[in-house]
Amino acid sequence: MTMKSTTEYLTFNLPERMGFVNITPQIEAIVRASRVQEGLLLCNAMHITASVFINDDESGLHADYKKWLEALAPFDPSPTRYQHNRTGEDNADAHMKRQIMGREVVVAITAGKLYLGPWEQIFYGEFDGRRPKRVLVKVIGE
Amino acid sequence: MTMKSTTEYLTFNLPERMGFVNITPQIEAIVRASRVQEGLLLCNAMHITASVFINDDESGLHADYKKWLEALAPFDPSPTRYQHNRTGEDNADAHMKRQIMGREVVVAITAGKLYLGPWEQIFYGEFDGRRPKRVLVKVIGE
Amino acid sequence: MTMKSTTEYLTFNLPERMGFVNITPQIEAIVRASRVQEGLLLCNAMHITASVFINDDESGLHADYKKWLEALAPFDPSPTRYQHNRTGEDNADAHMKRQIMGREVVVAITAGKLYLGPWEQIFYGEFDGRRPKRVLVKVIGE
Repeated sequence: MTMKSTTEYLTFNLPERMGFVNITPQIEAIVRASRVQEGLLLCNAMHITASVFINDDESGLHADYKKWLEALAPFDPSPTRYQHNRTGEDNADAHMKRQIMGREVVVAITAGKLYLGPWEQIFYGEFDGRRPKRVLVKVIGE
Repeated sequence: MTMKSTTEYLTFNLPERMGFVNITPQIEAIVRASRVQEGLLLCNAMHITASVFINDDESGLHADYKKWLEALAPFDPSPTRYQHNRTGEDNADAHMKRQIMGREVVVAITAGKLYLGPWEQIFYGEFDGRRPKRVLVKVIGE
Repeated sequence: MTMKSTTEYLTFNLPERMGFVNITPQIEAIVRASRVQEGLLLCNAMHITASVFINDDESGLHADYKKWLEALAPFDPSPTRYQHNRTGEDNADAHMKRQIMGREVVVAITAGKLYLGPWEQIFYGEFDGRRPKRVLVKVIGE
């Protein structure tokens, strides 16, 4: 068969600085509309203080992630801890949190569906919210 | 040429909580069987307390990874440190270790083979073992 | 349409132990030469003490990353902190820094171009420099 491809994007505007949104239903809808039966799906944050990652949809775990990431890379708008915050920005910590959680996921499409494990859910991860940000979804396959 | 694809999975059941298994030979066999000459291979853990990553097959380094990950995200089954462990689970730490080590790798297939650097080996990383878990391998190409 | 593919590599030899190089222009040139209009690009370090990652081209942030990674995984050539450094190596820390920053990025190609967000730039990340290392670039699509 010949190759098909689809490019879509989603937009998020989270009211808080840090938050996680389960985007699996939106991604599944894009896969259905693409009519790709066998292929790969790329889903990435287009902003460098945000992530797309796969993990569990459990609110306690999400609270744990927030506390853990805050300990590994504390928010600190002062220009002392982070040089990046001498540029007028206050989000150096968000650039670090995003590296821990990752920019993107690549997911298999098999028999027309996302081939996810039993607990795998796809999340948008925001580390410097309160403004609109985009997530890119690209499907290629047949 | 037209697109080909293959979907396979591997199952692991590690006796210990944390461990690393070199899965490069199994992945190479899947590539050979796929007959794909030019393409991409996705290999991902289907469980959210496990990783697939690429690094060195050196036992000292693996011991260092275990110690380092334990310091960054300590195992603690109590419900005090991790809210996730109020749900009856004891593996919140494993969800964090997996984010550091990553869910997946994407590897080039060139001239019918995995195109790996001189020391690159593909590992299954387990952070909450003692039960069977699956790894997905998807090949697309021509 | 039928599938096309391209395999290229770049070589870097950084004079310092840790450093970041913006490789976006070289990657864009490979995409143009590939003539792929719709597809995926994989860009990965072929060495296990180096990364390819996407973030901001801002020198203050890069200084922050270096300090942050050094705190998370300190360079220590002694055989005491890291078992890996009993093998004659001194770079166990570099294997850890690379796991935080990641091995690879996968980027969408749409209408013949890398589909990057407004601030997304692709970087080579070196954690054990002073010798030549390769980065693989693989394009597949139509």
